[in-house]
Amino acid sequence: MMPWGQSVDSSGCSFTPLVVLELASDTKEETIAWLLSRIRDQQINGGAELLVEQLGPGVGAQEKENPNIFLVGASWQRLLSGAEDLGLFKESTDGSMRGFTCATKHNFEDFKGEGDGFLSMAECQYIIKHELETLRAKDETHVPGYTQAKLYPGKSIIRRLQSKGILIQMFPLHEKEELKRLSFSWYKKVRLSLQPLDDIRHYYGEGQALYFGFLEYFTFALVPVAVIGAPYYLFDWEDYDKYVVFAVFNLIWCTVILELWKRCSATLAYRWGTLSRKKAFEEPRPGFHGVLGLNPVTGRKEPLYPSIKRQLRIYLVSLPFVLLCLYLSLCVMMVYFQLEGWALSVHDEEPTFWTGILLYIPSIIYAVVIEIMNLIYRYAADFITEWENHRLESSFQIHLVLKVLVFNFFNCFASLFYIAFVMQDMALLRQSLATLLITSQILNQFMEAFLPYWLRRRRNKKMIRKVQKRRTMEDVELPLVEQVRLEADMSTYLGTFDDYLELFLLFGYVSLFSCVYPLAAVLVVLNNITEVYSDAFKMCHVFKRPFSEPAANIGVWQLAFEAMSVIAVVTNFALIGMSPQVKAYFPDSDTQLILWIVATEHALLAFKFILAFLIADVPKHLQIKLARLEFESLEALKKKKMLEASEHSKMAQ
Amino acid sequence: MMPWGQSVDSSGCSFTPLVVLELASDTKEETIAWLLSRIRDQQINGGAELLVEQLGPGVGAQEKENPNIFLVGASWQRLLSGAEDLGLFKESTDGSMRGFTCATKHNFEDFKGEGDGFLSMAECQYIIKHELETLRAKDETHVPGYTQAKLYPGKSIIRRLQSKGILIQMFPLHEKEELKRLSFSWYKKVRLSLQPLDDIRHYYGEGQALYFGFLEYFTFALVPVAVIGAPYYLFDWEDYDKYVVFAVFNLIWCTVILELWKRCSATLAYRWGTLSRKKAFEEPRPGFHGVLGLNPVTGRKEPLYPSIKRQLRIYLVSLPFVLLCLYLSLCVMMVYFQLEGWALSVHDEEPTFWTGILLYIPSIIYAVVIEIMNLIYRYAADFITEWENHRLESSFQIHLVLKVLVFNFFNCFASLFYIAFVMQDMALLRQSLATLLITSQILNQFMEAFLPYWLRRRRNKKMIRKVQKRRTMEDVELPLVEQVRLEADMSTYLGTFDDYLELFLLFGYVSLFSCVYPLAAVLVVLNNITEVYSDAFKMCHVFKRPFSEPAANIGVWQLAFEAMSVIAVVTNFALIGMSPQVKAYFPDSDTQLILWIVATEHALLAFKFILAFLIADVPKHLQIKLARLEFESLEALKKKKMLEASEHSKMAQ
Repeated sequence: MMPWGQSVDSSGCSFTPLVVLELASDTKEETIAWLLSRIRDQQINGGAELLVEQLGPGVGAQEKENPNIFLVGASWQRLLSGAEDLGLFKESTDGSMRGFTCATKHNFEDFKGEGDGFLSMAECQYIIKHELETLRAKDETHVPGYTQAKLYPGKSIIRRLQSKGILIQMFPLHEKEELKRLSFSWYKKVRLSLQPLDDIRHYYGEGQALYFGFLEYFTFALVPVAVIGAPYYLFDWEDYDKYVVFAVFNLIWCTVILELWKRCSATLAYRWGTLSRKKAFEEPRPGFHGVLGLNPVTGRKEPLYPSIKRQLRIYLVSLPFVLLCLYLSLCVMMVYFQLEGWALSVHDEEPTFWTGILLYIPSIIYAVVIEIMNLIYRYAADFITEWENHRLESSFQIHLVLKVLVFNFFNCFASLFYIAFVMQDMALLRQSLATLLITSQILNQFMEAFLPYWLRRRRNKKMIRKVQKRRTMEDVELPLVEQVRLEADMSTYLGTFDDYLELFLLFGYVSLFSCVYPLAAVLVVLNNITEVYSDAFKMCHVFKRPFSEPAANIGVWQLAFEAMSVIAVVTNFALIGMSPQVKAYFPDSDTQLILWIVATEHALLAFKFILAFLIADVPKHLQIKLARLEFESLEALKKKKMLEASEHSKMAQ
Repeated sequence: MMPWGQSVDSSGCSFTPLVVLELASDTKEETIAWLLSRIRDQQINGGAELLVEQLGPGVGAQEKENPNIFLVGASWQRLLSGAEDLGLFKESTDGSMRGFTCATKHNFEDFKGEGDGFLSMAECQYIIKHELETLRAKDETHVPGYTQAKLYPGKSIIRRLQSKGILIQMFPLHEKEELKRLSFSWYKKVRLSLQPLDDIRHYYGEGQALYFGFLEYFTFALVPVAVIGAPYYLFDWEDYDKYVVFAVFNLIWCTVILELWKRCSATLAYRWGTLSRKKAFEEPRPGFHGVLGLNPVTGRKEPLYPSIKRQLRIYLVSLPFVLLCLYLSLCVMMVYFQLEGWALSVHDEEPTFWTGILLYIPSIIYAVVIEIMNLIYRYAADFITEWENHRLESSFQIHLVLKVLVFNFFNCFASLFYIAFVMQDMALLRQSLATLLITSQILNQFMEAFLPYWLRRRRNKKMIRKVQKRRTMEDVELPLVEQVRLEADMSTYLGTFDDYLELFLLFGYVSLFSCVYPLAAVLVVLNNITEVYSDAFKMCHVFKRPFSEPAANIGVWQLAFEAMSVIAVVTNFALIGMSPQVKAYFPDSDTQLILWIVATEHALLAFKFILAFLIADVPKHLQIKLARLEFESLEALKKKKMLEASEHSKMAQ
């Protein structure tokens, strides 16, 4: 049952191709020969022991086609040992998740012999990626044929080829059959069931599956908020007592759902074997550079870059840059308010239908400008974080996320804060919030899925015209050669970052001003439902298949969402304090009112923290399972030692 | 160089005694014989493989002397294998800390052959305690001679004997020579140097040493606060601007020192080998009871107690009980305020020297009552937490700490909060704070060290009179038999709980009201200096030696101190907001003032959290060392696997 084994014969390739390496078309022969030999060489000689073959020319082969595309695969045995290297967790016959080892392979649930579906294709591809990336230089001082591409013992060859532009890209292949089945059960039918998370994980890996799991969870979690919030809008309840109740419910609910998500994600991660998996040692990023020295951890030669220099770059360049961008965003906001004021004055002078529409125009323009600024800033942040020269991808990601989060938060919400707390105009706040939210949702869906799809469709058409014999690509199978070239041309999926960011901002719209605009939750729920479809669509049809990313949780985003829920408490209580209805309860003094508001706010914050503390991050039954595994390994060790000792004493006698 | 080996000859005991077991004097012969045989039996037969001997009669042996005292020791080999079982970390020859294994024993720094000082006596005693506690019943259904003391396969024998009162106590022996040396370098000379933390750890274990390390750190950390705070008192600066500056400094400083302490404690724990040590599987507490069933983690037979029942006990009995105690404490506080009012009225009517003193009397009485209530509550909390029937000691401790913390916090600070925020009388607040702080310090020192010392001294005198030949016990060595009986009579040290609690309350006095009474820091620093001496004294001379407790940090207390520092931000800003000097800045409206105060408070809280996030918990150089160890073990595993694979393929050829 290896669906991707079927293509072996028709492909003109003697093994199942899993990963594609595309080298620059002008790469020298000797470089290619050297690289292939290193990839094929036995592990004991420092090679990767993988199978690799050049892709043949396309059907209507033209001059400009890149000949240097290579297909990489591996023997079944090699994949298993790779799985052991990576410490993949699999379900054992006793139902628990255990680290896979070749020696104990028969103790695993789905292991039914050689070549079966024990490892998913995504896992095989991840293993090959790992093996390629840890293919290290031995005594080469440079890449043969490129004296400027320096190597030193222990340097990852693939990373150097990437950083020198010799390796253009490395990507895993799609599986047509599997993809068709997945996309059908995922988004092609209108369904009442949940997303096929296990299938998504099987095809795209844990990182992707957790994102879609979170998206789904988040949508369902907002349904109660939407249900409770909708009547406020429908019946025009202007009664602030009720708004207070709604806000308090919303704030506590946000805390509860974020805490419960940790439990859900732990359950998913346990089922997928990533919960207790140890992180492998992290290689330096491809772009990382510095003076060659000894890494204090590995003792290997490696470029070193003084941490103090990086700190200086962060605090003296990146920080001022971010502040400057925030200032620019503030200026744009001020322009928006002037436009808004102008539109209002036009409407007030001579109110017609058109001026009524004009009222919405500034908000819409502003929403578009915000999206554009976010986009530009995203590139700038990428560039400047790259320049900060982080050694590890994880540290790069944290700095990037932080930069982007702060700016996007400010950019999206600054105008709302201004309206709420400086202008204190609740009607305008409600209108602005609605316009921003709806516009940005529409823009996002368009930019994210339909635009890339349209672009890709145009490119596909060309390719299909080249292949000529076939008319539509949906129905007929392309030969492997064409398929690989087609996929090589697809855009690269840049990870779940932007998707999470979008959810984060939506969460902000729901929670920050929940007490003045309860309808936001309804809009976000509707958006999320379409988001599931458009995200699923873009994963299946717009982008190259991404490498699977093992993940046990949603990482830094959990923290970001929690921070947002804390900020939401503060903003909501400030809004409540400003409302005339609440003020009416304290006719004598504002002081009393504010003290009450502050006291309740502190109490709610304290309650949130206690709640977060009380709700265990891992469900009880998983805790027991994890404890049992640990206990068993301890006992096994003890038993082994005792046996050794008794044998030892017997031999001594 | 085994200082405690010297006593072997004079003791009448054929091995070095490490731990003492005292059984009830009416224990049946068959029980004793069975217990001794189980302790002596080989490990392969399920025994503990330890050495054990009965203590001979004392010099002036009387009828009422308990004959059932046993000395336990172990062979050198046995101790080493016990150290491996426990996963003790030791310094390796390459300077890093590694888990000790018998197979690699020669790779460790201080390992110089058999019987040397590689393991400290505290470690040996801890190993013996562990081995005794994990001595499990095989097929016995009850303790021989006691049919009501049920056993089942896997039940810890020692725990059952303890819970049935057959085993009265188990404690480690002091080392006279070592103790003399330690106490000299620790507190007998007036010194400018730091405490000998490594020696304390060597003698008492990591838990104790971390407490004294924290006490010292805390004292030094408060010195800047004391230095800056003293002039406020000396020069009677009533200027609130300056108080604000002081409070803000104090609040940030508290955060910084608490974060830095984590780094210090990590450094200490790394040096002592407890930082990366894995926690052993935790046995149920001796008092834990329930219906016999299968433990889901170990698969062993064990009493099970439904979690839901415990939750019910906690929420339906313990929680109301704590609330009732808080209410009682509130009533006492009200009585105090009436007394205070009465004293004031007497003084106002006819002010004399004596009525001036009378003013202080209510505060002093109240402070004494607070201490007494704390003491009674401590026992009650112990009892009720015991009744909650927690399975693990750690969970018991958390529930106990929580109960005691909440009550003590309320009991000690409620009156101050009342004075500050209800009566708004800053002069009274200052006076009350000073009286409470000073009285409780004096009481504590007295109750903690001098009272037990005096009681013990009286008992010692009796014992010494019995031994007759000797006059003073400080100078002359008692024979082992007498020494053991003397130590068996000493009070038991109940752990660092009360010591940390005291520091926690002192920290509260310093931080909660720092902006009205900066002198508190000076008083606390002075108190801490004497505290070091009195605690050291009581550890060396008042209590039985405690078993060493491996610890990597101060555990739940870190959290408690951090929570206090957050509460301190709130109280201080509230105090600042109420001061007339600050109010003078906002003559027009209180609202403006309060908004400013609240905004600054929120900013400071946010800053605190960011600061706590930015300061890494483990210093960089330790992170590198830990990462190196992990990397090495990964590499070794990989190498081993590769060798196995290549051998395998050779054999196949």
